[in-house]
Amino acid sequence: MTENGCEHRERVLTMDTMNPNIKRVEYAVRGPIVQRAVQIERELKMGVNKPFTEVIKANIGDCHAMGQKPITFFRQVLALCSYPDLLEDSKFPEDAKSRAHRILQACGGGSLGAYSTSQGIEMIRQDVARYIERRDGGIACDPDNIYLSTGASDAIVTMLKLLVSGEGMSRTGVMISIPQYPLYSAALAELGAVQISYYLDEDNCWSLDINELRRALQEAKKHCIPRALCIINPGNPTGQVQSRQCIEDVIRFAATENLFLMADEVYQDNVYAEGCKFHSFKKVLFEMGPEYSEKVELASFHSTSKCYMGECGFRGGYMEVVNLDPEVKVQLTKLVSVRLCPPVPGQALLDVVVNPPQPDEPSYDTFIKERSETLATLAEKANMTQEILNQVPGIKCNPVQGAMYTFPCIHLPPKAILEAKEKGQSPDMFYCMKLLEEKGICLVPGSGFGQRDGTYHFRMTILPPKEKLKIVLAKIKEFHQHFTDQYS
Amino acid sequence: MTENGCEHRERVLTMDTMNPNIKRVEYAVRGPIVQRAVQIERELKMGVNKPFTEVIKANIGDCHAMGQKPITFFRQVLALCSYPDLLEDSKFPEDAKSRAHRILQACGGGSLGAYSTSQGIEMIRQDVARYIERRDGGIACDPDNIYLSTGASDAIVTMLKLLVSGEGMSRTGVMISIPQYPLYSAALAELGAVQISYYLDEDNCWSLDINELRRALQEAKKHCIPRALCIINPGNPTGQVQSRQCIEDVIRFAATENLFLMADEVYQDNVYAEGCKFHSFKKVLFEMGPEYSEKVELASFHSTSKCYMGECGFRGGYMEVVNLDPEVKVQLTKLVSVRLCPPVPGQALLDVVVNPPQPDEPSYDTFIKERSETLATLAEKANMTQEILNQVPGIKCNPVQGAMYTFPCIHLPPKAILEAKEKGQSPDMFYCMKLLEEKGICLVPGSGFGQRDGTYHFRMTILPPKEKLKIVLAKIKEFHQHFTDQYS
Repeated sequence: MTENGCEHRERVLTMDTMNPNIKRVEYAVRGPIVQRAVQIERELKMGVNKPFTEVIKANIGDCHAMGQKPITFFRQVLALCSYPDLLEDSKFPEDAKSRAHRILQACGGGSLGAYSTSQGIEMIRQDVARYIERRDGGIACDPDNIYLSTGASDAIVTMLKLLVSGEGMSRTGVMISIPQYPLYSAALAELGAVQISYYLDEDNCWSLDINELRRALQEAKKHCIPRALCIINPGNPTGQVQSRQCIEDVIRFAATENLFLMADEVYQDNVYAEGCKFHSFKKVLFEMGPEYSEKVELASFHSTSKCYMGECGFRGGYMEVVNLDPEVKVQLTKLVSVRLCPPVPGQALLDVVVNPPQPDEPSYDTFIKERSETLATLAEKANMTQEILNQVPGIKCNPVQGAMYTFPCIHLPPKAILEAKEKGQSPDMFYCMKLLEEKGICLVPGSGFGQRDGTYHFRMTILPPKEKLKIVLAKIKEFHQHFTDQYS
Repeated sequence: MTENGCEHRERVLTMDTMNPNIKRVEYAVRGPIVQRAVQIERELKMGVNKPFTEVIKANIGDCHAMGQKPITFFRQVLALCSYPDLLEDSKFPEDAKSRAHRILQACGGGSLGAYSTSQGIEMIRQDVARYIERRDGGIACDPDNIYLSTGASDAIVTMLKLLVSGEGMSRTGVMISIPQYPLYSAALAELGAVQISYYLDEDNCWSLDINELRRALQEAKKHCIPRALCIINPGNPTGQVQSRQCIEDVIRFAATENLFLMADEVYQDNVYAEGCKFHSFKKVLFEMGPEYSEKVELASFHSTSKCYMGECGFRGGYMEVVNLDPEVKVQLTKLVSVRLCPPVPGQALLDVVVNPPQPDEPSYDTFIKERSETLATLAEKANMTQEILNQVPGIKCNPVQGAMYTFPCIHLPPKAILEAKEKGQSPDMFYCMKLLEEKGICLVPGSGFGQRDGTYHFRMTILPPKEKLKIVLAKIKEFHQHFTDQYS
């Protein structure tokens, strides 16, 4: 090498030199199958001949992309906040104007363009706290325990960051369900923590079994220090809704075993099945009395991306912390301050979500109508999905009690499994890839979420519009039958 | 402990058990002095008597909070995108409507509420690429090298994440300027990387001296593996603008020493001083010929938060990568996919920033007027700040050539230094705290950015409105003289 030249310069950042933890990260929801779907879409545009005319993406809980309409009131408030000249416009309802005015007053310089405090705008945190109190039948919520976030993912990763420490045998272990939402495994890989897998009980509607938690914990104690337990309720990708009793058992388990509880409750309004009800971990914890409510550490998460809003693109969300060590709280506040603040439009959106039109306000009727229709349609689609899939020999599907997904078990013939393995693919990836190529349906293989060895699944959202969902289900049926014949 | 109880439960997450890297994180821009400022504001509201009636926050580059007005065109487009019913409204100019229409067409389901691809909306990345090409006199830019982000901070941390590896003596070292913007030190602490400090030359207008880079690198090689060099140009907190020659020297240094270059160019439109000009690292790199342009790895960063827009709250930004290993690029894309996507309103805003009204469009004149006025006012305030501060005996201030800050050197009497040390405070923190308590002015002590031992500074933004800025400067003058007298 000449002194000032770089003719023989080698790359600094390569697969060999890069952060090895990042290499271990996997995120199937946007993995190779989705990249292939995007490619196929381009091919279709260029006029390539395919046995279908469009790719239907049922791989991700992206409500608006699937045609769900935003709530009018929310968008009116956002437009008013973005361009306050509209506050003079008589076409906007007064309640939208008053909400926008109130939000802007809480923003620096009266602008969405100012940074907020890192924990989120104080007034919005107060509104969130009141919302939680209403939801939980009056159990107190302190706005100082609320941290607004860039979607729920951001807050979950922030909390995990605080929890993770140690090397070798004393690394932090974090319990996550299998199947899981792969944000969790990805974050744990990135942070170099140990993933402790506990399996949900597919035969019992994906319920959580305390004995299985116990088994997983005992085994993990041999090689790491378990310190947190993550729960997703309603479940992603599994769609189950936890019973109150089960939540109580989980809290008791966390208390006895000294685990920090993380409750991912972003689907809290998405409960469809008769007899199922959403119970927040916070509420159950406080109903169990001071022995628990004053001691068990809990962080719970919510988002503007799901429920009836489906505003994924705004990246709004919040976390509530309970019983967090005050000194650690100072550290948490410091940590979030490095990223300055969550997106302010997402904070504004969250504010109207937790503070929607009231019965005496002009937008109330429309708001209720839009919300109920969206939730009713989702319930109908949840039911339709499970019914049609269960008619297919070789597909077995638990009821979609809540959330936005089904995670059916698929029977794959040994010959197909063999061919997949020869190709170096997991058998359900092989199946989903073929489904994509032949039918233009994009699903995520179960292997991306985790499943018991020797079982195969896919995750599919219930989000496509009804008529399209029928087509998707019919195509899956057709494909599965053909696939089974082909490999028998 | 009883089997199912938790009477003696100890906290899981405490200062002793938490992630030790997070404990080491510091972020002075929102540190204790700012928290005290917020407290004082509350006290004022409650009627507590103070020697001032309001706290003026000159601690953070928060343009709109300091009264800077958003660009009308940008906010019109955002309102139209948020509430597309407005596309029928005759009050909006046609160019705003066509921009909004085009952005919505590129969004899933025609909604800002849909997730985008993780790298950012393809059309917007194409617009960014064309913007960079115009900026750099036609040097090609590939939209596939553009990653949209949640503000520049997010992209900087993502890039550092990829770069950091190793343990003990083989830990990654990253060179950052001192004084620096504390996002860098905070991210390196969090990631467990080694911070390699190179000092800017205060006597030469905070310029970057290659010999100092060399010194810092040689010393660092004894205890880590230096792999990246971060530059902030125009400088934060130091306000210098790098000469083209200096940038060339830095690139040559990075080439010879095998360093990955990270160029933080978020203040690229904020250049005020006669004879100073912004040169992008990308442009200079390509002008140096293929020997460099085909080999040196570069990531450069831009944001919607600064320049004439000042839209901090939207958290919009992008990163361009050059010569990134294709396999590493796949890893980068995977990594950003875990957080799903940058906020879509911020992406939309970025699109209009890189694709503003054209001369033949109706909003052009207003846009140019608003942009020029904002930049002219900033230039005036940059000049005023430096002039007035340099009139104070004991304060020495370099010209504010660019960005939004001044970082003057303050002479502190030995008695003050002693008293600070007795209180366990850094002397400039002691000074700034007193300034806050006595005058209601919130600045950040130099120790939060790093400075040569035995020197003291503060960072102050030039953002308050002109009349208020005059008051701030007068109060600092008064305070400094009184402080000096008091401790002499």
